[in-house]
Amino acid sequence: MLNPVTPAFEDQLRSLLPAVAFKEDTAPYMSEPRGRHAGTGIVVAPASTEEVAALVKACAAASVGIIPYGGGTGLVGGQLSDQGPKPVVLSLERMNKVRAVYPTENVLVCDAGVILADVQKAAEDADRLFPLSLASEGSARIGGVLSTNAGGVNVLRYGNARALCLGLEVVRPDGTIWHGLTRLRKDNTGYDLRDLIIGAEGTLGVITGAALKLSPRPVGIGAALMAVSSPQAALDLLALAGARIGDGISAFEIMHRQGMDFLAEVGPKQREPLDEIPEWSVLIDVGLPAGLSPDAALEGVFEDGFEQGLVTDGVIAQSRAQRQELWDIRENIPEANRRIGSISSHDVALPLSVIPAFIEQAGAALAALGDFRINCFGHLGDGNLHYNVFPAKGRSRDDYDGQAADVKRIVHDLVAQMDGSVSAEHGIGRLKVADLEKYGDPVKLAMLRAVKDALDPKGIMNPGAVIEAKPAQ
Amino acid sequence: MLNPVTPAFEDQLRSLLPAVAFKEDTAPYMSEPRGRHAGTGIVVAPASTEEVAALVKACAAASVGIIPYGGGTGLVGGQLSDQGPKPVVLSLERMNKVRAVYPTENVLVCDAGVILADVQKAAEDADRLFPLSLASEGSARIGGVLSTNAGGVNVLRYGNARALCLGLEVVRPDGTIWHGLTRLRKDNTGYDLRDLIIGAEGTLGVITGAALKLSPRPVGIGAALMAVSSPQAALDLLALAGARIGDGISAFEIMHRQGMDFLAEVGPKQREPLDEIPEWSVLIDVGLPAGLSPDAALEGVFEDGFEQGLVTDGVIAQSRAQRQELWDIRENIPEANRRIGSISSHDVALPLSVIPAFIEQAGAALAALGDFRINCFGHLGDGNLHYNVFPAKGRSRDDYDGQAADVKRIVHDLVAQMDGSVSAEHGIGRLKVADLEKYGDPVKLAMLRAVKDALDPKGIMNPGAVIEAKPAQ
Repeated sequence: MLNPVTPAFEDQLRSLLPAVAFKEDTAPYMSEPRGRHAGTGIVVAPASTEEVAALVKACAAASVGIIPYGGGTGLVGGQLSDQGPKPVVLSLERMNKVRAVYPTENVLVCDAGVILADVQKAAEDADRLFPLSLASEGSARIGGVLSTNAGGVNVLRYGNARALCLGLEVVRPDGTIWHGLTRLRKDNTGYDLRDLIIGAEGTLGVITGAALKLSPRPVGIGAALMAVSSPQAALDLLALAGARIGDGISAFEIMHRQGMDFLAEVGPKQREPLDEIPEWSVLIDVGLPAGLSPDAALEGVFEDGFEQGLVTDGVIAQSRAQRQELWDIRENIPEANRRIGSISSHDVALPLSVIPAFIEQAGAALAALGDFRINCFGHLGDGNLHYNVFPAKGRSRDDYDGQAADVKRIVHDLVAQMDGSVSAEHGIGRLKVADLEKYGDPVKLAMLRAVKDALDPKGIMNPGAVIEAKPAQ
Repeated sequence: MLNPVTPAFEDQLRSLLPAVAFKEDTAPYMSEPRGRHAGTGIVVAPASTEEVAALVKACAAASVGIIPYGGGTGLVGGQLSDQGPKPVVLSLERMNKVRAVYPTENVLVCDAGVILADVQKAAEDADRLFPLSLASEGSARIGGVLSTNAGGVNVLRYGNARALCLGLEVVRPDGTIWHGLTRLRKDNTGYDLRDLIIGAEGTLGVITGAALKLSPRPVGIGAALMAVSSPQAALDLLALAGARIGDGISAFEIMHRQGMDFLAEVGPKQREPLDEIPEWSVLIDVGLPAGLSPDAALEGVFEDGFEQGLVTDGVIAQSRAQRQELWDIRENIPEANRRIGSISSHDVALPLSVIPAFIEQAGAALAALGDFRINCFGHLGDGNLHYNVFPAKGRSRDDYDGQAADVKRIVHDLVAQMDGSVSAEHGIGRLKVADLEKYGDPVKLAMLRAVKDALDPKGIMNPGAVIEAKPAQ
């Protein structure tokens, strides 16, 4: 059973760490992007791995809970809690140094508190690419990105955060330090503890440093927006593009017109690149080696797709600025969603081939329930849809009081029935603990609990996230 | 503490499974490729996941050890044991069906006992590629390939076995079945149990099925053998090729002339493709999308490399047959090594940039110890060297009695000092348990033990592999 942070315990921490480590204004750490949860706790920001270890050791001895805090951009409430005894919120923000870049090895080693955009920048400065890219990259920190196994737009080609990490430095729940910052591409010496910590959302230890995998920068970069005749046509176009361009496709995003309509309604305002807003469109991004023209590759996809009746209209970016304009549409949809205010949002993954059936059946089931607007968009290449349900035009979230749970149940039941995942890239946090309990294989849940109890026997690490906190003994 | 298989327990198993599941001639299962270890046990080959579960449940109840057995091709003694109470050797050979292929999803689902080459073939029949390729692919089974996180020649481009698996079906040490055969590309619902089982060498459960990731078949395939002036030149050529060809490089293998000399001395006989056998050479394999010529790409690498003084000679394969000839040289080296008989073999990984220093320092240290022949070859693109030490010409392994341990210590100490790994792709098995204890981070070892005890509390799964078996209570 955990104890709360008491004044006496805070005094003890203040004797261990310098005053600058203690955040007096804790408000910014106690809310999250969608404004749906609030938190409590004292905020401490150590400046080194040793300081993290000292802090964790003290918490372990006193059985005080710890919530590791990166950029605070998570969407499932993993970074804050107002339940249970008052915890320590351990912010990595002062551990924000790139420790070393090894261009010939395509490796970058950094503190866990470095902001994702700064990692991208450091890679670029060494003429390399760190391909992980997502809307919150200006504030998300690499420790959080790894702890949540973040996805984003380039997973199709480069994999998610897990695939981009070679090694980790981790402070365990007992305050010992695992020095696992390897730069090796292959290392079969024992269980894959790295991937166990990645995606554990801070419940098995605190990531303090990471060795990240860089890539050569693609030479020929291009993008196109194409109107497709249906979700099935989008999938067929993905296969067609894969056959023509191979690994060169870095992103393949699907968007329903609802997203464009939201942008027109509440902003951020975008220029609409096609004559008519299509019902469904895809944004294709390519990065090719020297000798291949991205324009020619995209034109080939367009022409074949048009001939096969998959594509009805399209535009190929003629400049970096135009490519950015196309991406702005995609990347501003989450902000437009936020302004409209969803009744229930879902981050689901499905086997690729069932996606058209899912979209049809989910739409039909929700239409039978009530009058909603559905914004379905996301990373089609990865089978990952953001399937978000909104009030009808002119109505507000409050008009649907009590229906959010029904909406969520309908969507998630269908996902489970189709062998999908109710959290493709956002993780479990605190918001989806019940979903994991409901939809998770019981044998898997037993393994999760066994691992948690083995590696964090006191249950002090991010209590209540991913799996339910241990009941009082 | 474990119990041996008794006649009474065997009778119990025979009441659970049909007679055909029991192998009367156990000899083939009791030796391994290098002939260095022998095993003991009764061999049982269930035909279904349910039969595996029944078998494991009986062993768990009786505290009898289980050694999961795939193709028996492992090089570190993970597949057999002559220590401890007589175990059940659980062969997956009768679970050898490809369950389903989803070409539009690039997914193949199969039993764990399917032979690797049969998976490759099934992928090819669907016009797809299963890229994992290694010398033993004609007998290695996919469950073993995953349990050992096998590497091989295409890791540079496609990753090791871990990167090619989407989901697993696993029988846990208590006989329950984890139905984790997902075809999803993204699934952030709880800890990464899949990657925990992959590479666990059968010590945490038995893999009974797998969902594997396929790739489009590259259109333009080519290979070249180039003589390089030094290991550093090989690394510089790797960087040069990466900049020119990007992801198109599927393999980048380094070979020392010792391997060619062994082939000439003991066979299998090869045609030598260059006028003179070079001190160091690299085998480069490329697979390119439509529109790019592999020959032109390799010629460009050769010309730039020649101009920069990295490459001194080379040949580009002019046909599929010639490409195979080049690969035969590389792939027959392990057989030549076996015929010569090594004093000590090492499968090490190093940060790429320290490899030239490692080769120099290891060679100097061994020269100071005695008169050896060193065959250093392997997957340079992954930083993975097979660094094998042999008797001088005309002498035999027995002449070096007592020196094997010194050789191993010198090599592994240097690897550890250079932040490398003492098992890049072969795993720990039983052969390297002491190495893991010696060179592993103590905090990592504590985590390994905690995970093992949590998921296999009785210690029945592959006892003595990866980590020491639990002492008698």
